[in-house]
Amino acid sequence: MADKKMVEAITSMEEDFAQWYTDVVKKAELCDYTSVKGCMVIKPAGYAIWELIQKELDARFKAVGVQNVYLPMFIPESLLDKEKDHVEGFAPEVAWVTQGGLNELPERLCVRPTSETLFCDFYKNDIHSYRDLPKVYNQWCSVVRWEKETRPFLRSREFLWQEGHTAHATAEESQERTLQMLNVYAKFLEEVLAIPAIKGQKTEKEKFAGAIATYTVEALMHDGKALQSGTSHNFGDGFAKAFGIQFADKDNTLKYVHQTSWGMTTRLIGALIMVHGDNEGLVIPPRVAPIQICIVPVMQKKEGVLDKAYELRDRLAKDFRVKVDDSDKTPGFKFAEAEMRGYPIRVEIGPKDIEAGKCVICRRDTREKTEVALEELETKAAEILETMQKEMLERARAHRDSHTYVAHNMEEFEQIFNEKSGFVKAMWCGCRECEDQIKEKLAVTSRCMPFEQEQIADTCVCCGKPAKKMVYWGRAY
Amino acid sequence: MADKKMVEAITSMEEDFAQWYTDVVKKAELCDYTSVKGCMVIKPAGYAIWELIQKELDARFKAVGVQNVYLPMFIPESLLDKEKDHVEGFAPEVAWVTQGGLNELPERLCVRPTSETLFCDFYKNDIHSYRDLPKVYNQWCSVVRWEKETRPFLRSREFLWQEGHTAHATAEESQERTLQMLNVYAKFLEEVLAIPAIKGQKTEKEKFAGAIATYTVEALMHDGKALQSGTSHNFGDGFAKAFGIQFADKDNTLKYVHQTSWGMTTRLIGALIMVHGDNEGLVIPPRVAPIQICIVPVMQKKEGVLDKAYELRDRLAKDFRVKVDDSDKTPGFKFAEAEMRGYPIRVEIGPKDIEAGKCVICRRDTREKTEVALEELETKAAEILETMQKEMLERARAHRDSHTYVAHNMEEFEQIFNEKSGFVKAMWCGCRECEDQIKEKLAVTSRCMPFEQEQIADTCVCCGKPAKKMVYWGRAY
Repeated sequence: MADKKMVEAITSMEEDFAQWYTDVVKKAELCDYTSVKGCMVIKPAGYAIWELIQKELDARFKAVGVQNVYLPMFIPESLLDKEKDHVEGFAPEVAWVTQGGLNELPERLCVRPTSETLFCDFYKNDIHSYRDLPKVYNQWCSVVRWEKETRPFLRSREFLWQEGHTAHATAEESQERTLQMLNVYAKFLEEVLAIPAIKGQKTEKEKFAGAIATYTVEALMHDGKALQSGTSHNFGDGFAKAFGIQFADKDNTLKYVHQTSWGMTTRLIGALIMVHGDNEGLVIPPRVAPIQICIVPVMQKKEGVLDKAYELRDRLAKDFRVKVDDSDKTPGFKFAEAEMRGYPIRVEIGPKDIEAGKCVICRRDTREKTEVALEELETKAAEILETMQKEMLERARAHRDSHTYVAHNMEEFEQIFNEKSGFVKAMWCGCRECEDQIKEKLAVTSRCMPFEQEQIADTCVCCGKPAKKMVYWGRAY
Repeated sequence: MADKKMVEAITSMEEDFAQWYTDVVKKAELCDYTSVKGCMVIKPAGYAIWELIQKELDARFKAVGVQNVYLPMFIPESLLDKEKDHVEGFAPEVAWVTQGGLNELPERLCVRPTSETLFCDFYKNDIHSYRDLPKVYNQWCSVVRWEKETRPFLRSREFLWQEGHTAHATAEESQERTLQMLNVYAKFLEEVLAIPAIKGQKTEKEKFAGAIATYTVEALMHDGKALQSGTSHNFGDGFAKAFGIQFADKDNTLKYVHQTSWGMTTRLIGALIMVHGDNEGLVIPPRVAPIQICIVPVMQKKEGVLDKAYELRDRLAKDFRVKVDDSDKTPGFKFAEAEMRGYPIRVEIGPKDIEAGKCVICRRDTREKTEVALEELETKAAEILETMQKEMLERARAHRDSHTYVAHNMEEFEQIFNEKSGFVKAMWCGCRECEDQIKEKLAVTSRCMPFEQEQIADTCVCCGKPAKKMVYWGRAY
């Protein structure tokens, strides 16, 4: 049973989802505000999740030939200026370094908001021949965007991410890589974070500054809002032409490279909280849980109890990330804390259990309790973690599906967004005006044109002209 | 046999060590200059070494209770100003952000040169009671120092590092942690990078801005110059008092915490190059070699050769980091390239070898060649890597010892530094004036007061007054 004091401290999701989110972030000690406006501290419990995300994602990158590099964090203004659409997109939200040491700089440097321009500048010198291609580089770093309104993990002036930047000999190859990385993201979301994603293409209005096509994985949060969880961009040869990145091809002619970029950020921690969390707090999918099993000794002052807890920890540590909560708090408080922090499994063990050669396993998501013989602990724990990971994904998918609606016309469309919250599938004519109108009226944006198209109607939900694409619409973080 | 063209391209160490270093960095494709003055690109071969350094060091940190976090990259000027010595030390060499988005900032932000002030600001809010102590946090990030002269890995305006920052209830505990982390560094250098280090304390003149004591691990490069390879600082309660970091102790009184910090950087890659490299190029200690074994097929167009090379790779990949060089270069060129890049083992396999069921292993550091039966390849490779790691350390230690001199008086001291290059052990009175004089005259600095003291003489090598400490002196990077 959870300790009252602890539980009462979180606002319920139903009452105020935004406050619930802030409470969970704070109470589970994931991150905190700082004296640096708009920036956050990622605390150990939050950073450990990011480390596991990095490890998993990085291994998946390396499996598809990605190599890591590190480029400077500063971009000279003249470099940022080279690609017209790109600079227009980013210039209004960058931080500028104007002084170095005691001197005014001859040229302002912006702190990278993203590194396309730096990679182009690098590739220009590093690529000469078709033998130098493809380049499939990635970097893990922090970037800065001078946002006005910030929220922990979801939007902050500095955030951590990875940014992949590739260069290819042909347009086909760069398109292939763009989609390959989108698929890496979608599989990672499903298999590791237990988050089902809609894969699709962004509209012209929503695409990345400088790209010819932007693809996205869109996830649905528990409150029915959408979260863009990763994007992959095909730049064609636009950047290459702006920066002069040419190579001598096999036929001895000079050609421009074709480029891509793709990124995922610490936003994913926000996604994980908002997809899986509940009114007891955080629920972490086992594969990225820094602590998978928390052992709580009951009546720990009785002889042998703590020793047994440590013995179980040492046994479990061979296969799992495990800790013993041997603090001087009450068991009830520890139970509540373990729930708040989202540990997938809590093992309760007291003097009577020890005598009977058993313990109690409590699964975080369903809060189901099972008595387990001590000799079967490893097997049972492995089973439960596996099941939990699988069922978390199934539950998230069921939630998404039950919050995905269809609108055939504007009346239905408005009614859904006025009464409900979720994705709405509706047809679109392809014009920016309709997107603008929908955004202004309902604060709803096109999330993507999904790869899996359906012919819901023949006309655009907004203007009634012939429809070109089915679009997922939603209110987004 | 190595390809002439390739080998001739490097300046020899004996001819011009600085040029040799630059050539190796460039030819082994570790890093490169960029359009961003004073900043570098760390290329895949260099970054992969850094990843292995991180992995090893991070595991050693976690084994002594360190937790990772992430703090903002910006420090408001008022925060940097809080500790007097610290701001004096760093303010002249920081980069300042003065504009965010389209607006002038109300207060300048410096890009972190180090994060003591940010950690203090965070701890002030996060530490309340003795139960919150100790805090043993670390972050992996990049920092910026506006250096005038830069050199790849050794000194650049932006570099990668880890910075540990801890807070403790007592002075004893913070001193203990300071030395514990210094020992982690020394063991890491020896066991992983095969670099023997002198452990000792910095003099007042050389200590970190704001510390009460700075400890260092000093390594000797092949050219006899010293490289400070890691430092660990005890701050006492100086920062705590400047920032007001207090906790309620068990006796219910408010006390100031005691703090430490410690760091290692991408400089270590420079150290590795300059300790182990030779006139053929880079030599990477097996434990941090991104490629431990490079298989070079000979007459690879003959049927079965490439297949055999891939088969061996697949076998070796179970235990080692391995690649096949199946490019269309000549074997001679590939051999030279494998040497330049410092792969510990090169495996040569051609049609005759396959027929005889054997291959040739060439060890990078000694260039010793051994014929090995194919079925014994794994065992033999493991043996050679182990031996190589061990002997690289022994060789580095022998080099350091044979380049460590003793001076009893100023005449000897000057003569050594005029004729030779290395560490000089000599007595010191403890006065800054003598250090200043020695630096001015010989461009030599005190590297450290080693933990292992010897009584070489009774008087200071410089002023002749009674000696207090034996000091390691040297010319440093």
